[in-house]
Amino acid sequence: MSSVNPDLVKERQKCTFDVQELVHFIDRGEEHTLERKELEDLVLSVKELKDETPEEYLSHKERYENAIRKASLLFKILQKYFETHNLLDIFSPTNKYRVQFGVLKDVSPFLVHMGMFLPTLLHQTTPEQAAEWVPKAQSMQMIGTYAQTELGHGTFLRGLETTATYDAKAEEFILNTPTLTSFKWWPGGLAHTANHCVVVAQLYTKGKCYGVHPFLVQIRDLETHMPMPGIKIGEIGSKLGYNTVNNGFLGFNKVRIPRTNLLMKNAQVLKDGTYVKAKSEKLTYGTMVLIRVLIVTDMAYELARASTVAVRYSVVRHQSQPKPGQPEPQIIEYVTQQHKLFIAVATSHVYRITGHWLWDTYYKVTSDLDKGNLEQLPELHAVSCCLKAVCSRDASIHIDDCRLACGGHGYMKSSSFPFIQAIVTASVTYEGEYTVMMLQTARYLMKTLKQALSGKAITSTVAYLLDFDKNSNRNWQNTPEGIVIGFQAIAAGLTKAAYDEIEKHEKTGLDYEDSWNQASVQLVRASEAHCRVIICEKSWLEAQRLTKSLSPALSKVLLELVELYIIYWALEKKGDFLVYTKMQKDDVMQLQQRYEELLAVIRPNAVGLVDGFDIRDEILNSTLGAYDGRVYERLMEEALKSPLNAEPVNTSFHQYLKPFMTAKL
Amino acid sequence: MSSVNPDLVKERQKCTFDVQELVHFIDRGEEHTLERKELEDLVLSVKELKDETPEEYLSHKERYENAIRKASLLFKILQKYFETHNLLDIFSPTNKYRVQFGVLKDVSPFLVHMGMFLPTLLHQTTPEQAAEWVPKAQSMQMIGTYAQTELGHGTFLRGLETTATYDAKAEEFILNTPTLTSFKWWPGGLAHTANHCVVVAQLYTKGKCYGVHPFLVQIRDLETHMPMPGIKIGEIGSKLGYNTVNNGFLGFNKVRIPRTNLLMKNAQVLKDGTYVKAKSEKLTYGTMVLIRVLIVTDMAYELARASTVAVRYSVVRHQSQPKPGQPEPQIIEYVTQQHKLFIAVATSHVYRITGHWLWDTYYKVTSDLDKGNLEQLPELHAVSCCLKAVCSRDASIHIDDCRLACGGHGYMKSSSFPFIQAIVTASVTYEGEYTVMMLQTARYLMKTLKQALSGKAITSTVAYLLDFDKNSNRNWQNTPEGIVIGFQAIAAGLTKAAYDEIEKHEKTGLDYEDSWNQASVQLVRASEAHCRVIICEKSWLEAQRLTKSLSPALSKVLLELVELYIIYWALEKKGDFLVYTKMQKDDVMQLQQRYEELLAVIRPNAVGLVDGFDIRDEILNSTLGAYDGRVYERLMEEALKSPLNAEPVNTSFHQYLKPFMTAKL
Repeated sequence: MSSVNPDLVKERQKCTFDVQELVHFIDRGEEHTLERKELEDLVLSVKELKDETPEEYLSHKERYENAIRKASLLFKILQKYFETHNLLDIFSPTNKYRVQFGVLKDVSPFLVHMGMFLPTLLHQTTPEQAAEWVPKAQSMQMIGTYAQTELGHGTFLRGLETTATYDAKAEEFILNTPTLTSFKWWPGGLAHTANHCVVVAQLYTKGKCYGVHPFLVQIRDLETHMPMPGIKIGEIGSKLGYNTVNNGFLGFNKVRIPRTNLLMKNAQVLKDGTYVKAKSEKLTYGTMVLIRVLIVTDMAYELARASTVAVRYSVVRHQSQPKPGQPEPQIIEYVTQQHKLFIAVATSHVYRITGHWLWDTYYKVTSDLDKGNLEQLPELHAVSCCLKAVCSRDASIHIDDCRLACGGHGYMKSSSFPFIQAIVTASVTYEGEYTVMMLQTARYLMKTLKQALSGKAITSTVAYLLDFDKNSNRNWQNTPEGIVIGFQAIAAGLTKAAYDEIEKHEKTGLDYEDSWNQASVQLVRASEAHCRVIICEKSWLEAQRLTKSLSPALSKVLLELVELYIIYWALEKKGDFLVYTKMQKDDVMQLQQRYEELLAVIRPNAVGLVDGFDIRDEILNSTLGAYDGRVYERLMEEALKSPLNAEPVNTSFHQYLKPFMTAKL
Repeated sequence: MSSVNPDLVKERQKCTFDVQELVHFIDRGEEHTLERKELEDLVLSVKELKDETPEEYLSHKERYENAIRKASLLFKILQKYFETHNLLDIFSPTNKYRVQFGVLKDVSPFLVHMGMFLPTLLHQTTPEQAAEWVPKAQSMQMIGTYAQTELGHGTFLRGLETTATYDAKAEEFILNTPTLTSFKWWPGGLAHTANHCVVVAQLYTKGKCYGVHPFLVQIRDLETHMPMPGIKIGEIGSKLGYNTVNNGFLGFNKVRIPRTNLLMKNAQVLKDGTYVKAKSEKLTYGTMVLIRVLIVTDMAYELARASTVAVRYSVVRHQSQPKPGQPEPQIIEYVTQQHKLFIAVATSHVYRITGHWLWDTYYKVTSDLDKGNLEQLPELHAVSCCLKAVCSRDASIHIDDCRLACGGHGYMKSSSFPFIQAIVTASVTYEGEYTVMMLQTARYLMKTLKQALSGKAITSTVAYLLDFDKNSNRNWQNTPEGIVIGFQAIAAGLTKAAYDEIEKHEKTGLDYEDSWNQASVQLVRASEAHCRVIICEKSWLEAQRLTKSLSPALSKVLLELVELYIIYWALEKKGDFLVYTKMQKDDVMQLQQRYEELLAVIRPNAVGLVDGFDIRDEILNSTLGAYDGRVYERLMEEALKSPLNAEPVNTSFHQYLKPFMTAKL
C-alpha cells in the first residue's frame, strides 16, 4: 500500500460537498453507480487483460494481435454479463461500459460490430432477417462491420459509387467496385477481423438507380477466414489514433449475394425486380441522429478523463517562486491554470446535462415518429448536427488545453492525453464533419427565418430568430438567464446577416447555391450562436431542475460550474455581444470579474469535483492523474517499462555509433 | 512517369505570378535556392536513407535503431558537406537543412547534439575548453546532449535540485541527484545515444550555493558505451511525438568530474574553490533568445508543409453536389475551406517575414551586447517571449485546421499531418511554456507602463502604451495600417486594465505577486495584443519593403496575404476593437467583406503559392500533398505497405476468433 500525496489529502479535506452524492448524480442514481462498479470489478479483475508491455511499445502488427486477444476475452465477459442485463443499454449515455477504455487502452476491433453492425441488423431488417442474423451476430459467429464511406466519398452519400445491380433471373444482387475511388475505406474491423459486412451501395434494378441501400455481404470464409472470391480486402494503414481498431478497405469484383441480403425493413426489391419504396425517407435519419446524440455525452466523458488528470497533477506539481524565500506554489494556485482547467470540468457537466436532455428529446421525437408524426424531426436534426459539431470541436480544444497545462509531462503517452486527444479529435470528423454539420443547421435556420419573415408560424424554440433588431430586442443582462437572451439576440442577428448576405449575392445574379457558398463563413457563425443558445439555455434550465433534489452544498457547486461555462462563452463572444446586444465595455469588465470570482469559488472543490467523476485508476490509465497522486514515482516506473531500457547498451551502438566515433580518431 | 492530376494542371495554369520568383524570394535569393537544391539532391540520392517499411509500423525499439542507422548515415553526408560550407549556418533560419525531415520522418537522436550541445561548447567555454572539446564533438567522438530540465522542475530554473559541490582537495566537482524529482528528464539522445552531457546543476563551493551552472560530464564509456560508475540512465518512454529522439533520464550518485569541466566562459571556480562571478548575468540570455527566434521561422516552415498538403488535396478532392445534375465541385471551391486554408498560407509568410526581422534585430542587439550595451536586451527578451508563444500556439491551431479540412484522410499517418502536429504542438511547451512566456512579456509591459506613468522616457516601440484612452487615441481605420493602430490601442487598453487590476487588488491588502496572479488572465491578454501589434506592424512594413524589388504580380499576391492575416485577426479580435477603438458594427461588416474578397482574389493562386514553398515530395512525405496530386493511388499504395497486409489471414484468427466463433455453434 502506498500513501496518498499529502497535497491531495489536503485538497480532499477542503471539499465543501459530499463526493459520493456527486458520483450518484453523474451516474443518474445510486443503483446505477453500484451496477457500474459491479461491472468494473468484473472486468478489471481479469488479470489476462493487463498488459505486461504497455501497448505503445509494440509494433503495429503486435498491437492488433494483442487487441484481438484482449477484445475477445472482454467480449466473453460481456456476453456472460448480458445474459442478465439489457444489451441495448450499451447504446445509451451510460458510463458503465467505459471500463473498456481502461483494459483496451486504444479502441476495440469489435467497436463497429457492437456500435453499428448489430444496431443496423436490429433496426433495418425485416423480422425474418433479424431472426436469422441477430443471434449469430450476438454470439459472434458472424463478426461484422458497416461499410459506407469510400476512398473518394465521405460526406456526400449520394455520390457513393459502389453498385448493387439486381439480376432477376438468379434472384441475386451483384456488388461491384467500378473505380479506385469507390473502394470502401475506414470501417473498423473490416481489415482482418470481420467476416460479414453491411455494405451501402447504389441499388440498380430494371435498369434504374434507386439510390443507396444497405446489403449484408459475407466477406470472409467462416472456416479459413480467407477473403471470399471477388473480394479485395486489407488494412488502410497507420493513423493518428484508433490503431487497434483494424480499419479496412474493401473492393468487389462482381460479387453475388441473394436478393434477401438487402436489408428490407424500409425499401424492398421483389423477386421480379420491382422496387418498393420506403414509407418515409426520414425514417433512416434515426440512427444517424442517435449516434450524434451519443457523441455529446462521449465528449462529456472524455473531458472528465482529461480534467481528472490535469487537476490532480496541478495539485501535486509545484513550480516557481513568486515570493522569495517561500515554497514553490502548487501550479493550481495560478489563476491562469484555473482558467485552463475549470472550464474543462464545467464543460463536462454542461455536455452531460445537455446530452441527457437531447437523449430524452430524441426518444420523444422518435416515438412520435413511430406514430407517423414527423413534424419535430427537422428541428431535432438541426439541433443534433450543431451540437455534435460544437461539442466535439470544443472538447478537443479544452482537452488540448488540459494537456498543455501539464507541461512536458502531458506529452508523455503515459499521461493518457495522447490517447484521449486522438480519440476526441477523430469525432470532429466522423459521423458528420464539423463544417458540413454546421451548414446543415444553417439550412434549417435560413428556412425557418424565411418562413417567419413571410408570416408563417415557426416552432417556438426558434421564435427568437425574429428578434434580430438590436434596438428592439429583449435586453440581455449580466446573469446566466440574461446571457442566454443575449445569445438569442446574437443568433438572430447573425442569422439575419447571413440571410441578407445571401440575398445580396443573389441580386448580383448568382444563383442560390453560389450565394449560399459566398455567405457560408457567416452561416457557420450563425449556427454556432444558435448552438450556444441551446447549450446555455438547456443546461442552465436542466441544472436548476435536477439540482432541486440535491443537497444545497452540491447544488451550489454544480450551478457555479454551469454559470462558469455560460460566462466563459459570453466573454469569448464579447465581440458578438457588443454588436448584437446592448452590452457595454463596463459589462465586459463585470463579467470578467464574476468569471474570476467563480474560479476562486470553485478552486477548493477542484479535486472533489474530479474525484466525483469517479474514474478508476485502471480506467484512467495515467501516470499524472492517479487517485494517490504518486506522479513522479509513476513516471519513473512507466519509463522503466520501455523495452529500450531492458539492456544498458543498445545494439545500434556497436553497429553504427562506434564505427562512426572512431572513424576520425 | 505518372501523369499529373488534371485539376492540378488547371490550377497551375491559373496562377498569376512566376512561381520560381516566389521560390527565390522565400529562399532569400536564387543562390540560396541553388544551394538548397544541391544539398537536397545530395541527401535524397542516398537510397539507404529510404525506408522499406514506413517507420510507423515498427516497434518503439526498432524505430530507434532505424533512426540511429539513418541519422549516422546522414551525419556522414553532412560532415562531408561542412568541409566546404559553414557549419554555423545550421543555426540560422534557412530551409536548407529541412531536407532532414524527409529522410528521418521523425526527429534525429542527434538533434540536441547539433542544436544545443555543440552551440553550448562553442559559446559558453574558455578558448582552451573549446579547443579541446569542439573538434571531438564535431567529429562525433563525443556524442553529446544538454540536461537542464528535471523530473520535478522545468520552467523554474532556480528550483533545479541537482548539485555540483566543489572539493578543493581533489580539484573536482561532485555531481549528485538528491531526490527522485531531481533526475534529469527529457534531453534528446540522453537515453542510449550520448556519451557526454552538459549538465546544469547548482554550484556549491566553500559551503555556499552560487546558483545553476553548466558542467561537462562523461556519461558512458567510450569503448563499451556502458553507463559510467554512479550514473543511472535510461529512456523516459513513449510520447506523442519525437519517438526517435531518444529522450532520457539521468541521475548521479556522487559522480566526480575535474574542476575544469565547469564551462567557464562566464563564471569560474578557481583551484582553491574561490567563485569568480560572470561579468553580466544577461550574457547567458543569448542562447535562449536565439532558440526562440528560430522557433518563429520553424513555425513558418511547418505551416508551409501543412498548407501545401491541404491545398493540393483540396484541389484534387471533389465532394457534394450543391446543384443537381452538375459535377461535384473541388472542395477548395467552398469558401469555408478557403477560410481554413488561406490563413495558414498567409501565416507562413507572415511568420517567415517577422522571423527574419527578429533574427536581424537579434544580431543587432547581440553585437551591441558585445560592446557592453545591454539597453535593448529587455525589449528583445520581451518580444522573443511573446512571439515564441503566440507563433507556436497559432501555428498548432492552423495546422490542426488544415488536417481537419482534409477530413478522414488527414487522420492517416501517411498524410504527414500527425507527424507535423506532434512536432509543432511540442514547441508550445519546450523552450518556455506558452503562459510562462506570455507573462514574461507582461512583466515588461507592466514595468514599462509604470515608468511611463511616472513620466520617465520609454522605448519608442512601446510608446503607444500611453494611448490607453479610447476617446483620445489615434483612430484606427479599415486598412492594414489602421488595424495596426487599432491593435496598439487594444494593447494599450488591455495593459492599462491589467495594471489597474493589479492596483485594485493591492488596495485590498494583497501583496504585489498575489495581485499579479489575480490579474494574470488579463495580463496574458495584454501580452497577446502587444504581440499582434508586433507581428502585424513588422510583417506589413517588411513586406512592403521586401516586395519593392519583386515583380508587380508577385508583390501584389504577397501583400494580399499579409493583409489577409491582419484582417483575419482584426475580425477574430473584434470584441477588443469594439471596446478599445472606435470600431463600429458597420466596420465589422466591411472588414468581413474585404476578408471574403481577399479569399476570392487568392483562390486562383492557391496552388501556385504552395508550389512556391517548394517542398519536394520526398521531404513532404504525404500521400495527400504530392506535386502530381495522385492522392487516391498513393493512399492505396501506402495502405498496402502495412505489414498486416502481408498475409491475408492474421494468426489471431486461429488463436482467438475461430474458437470464439464456434463456441456457441
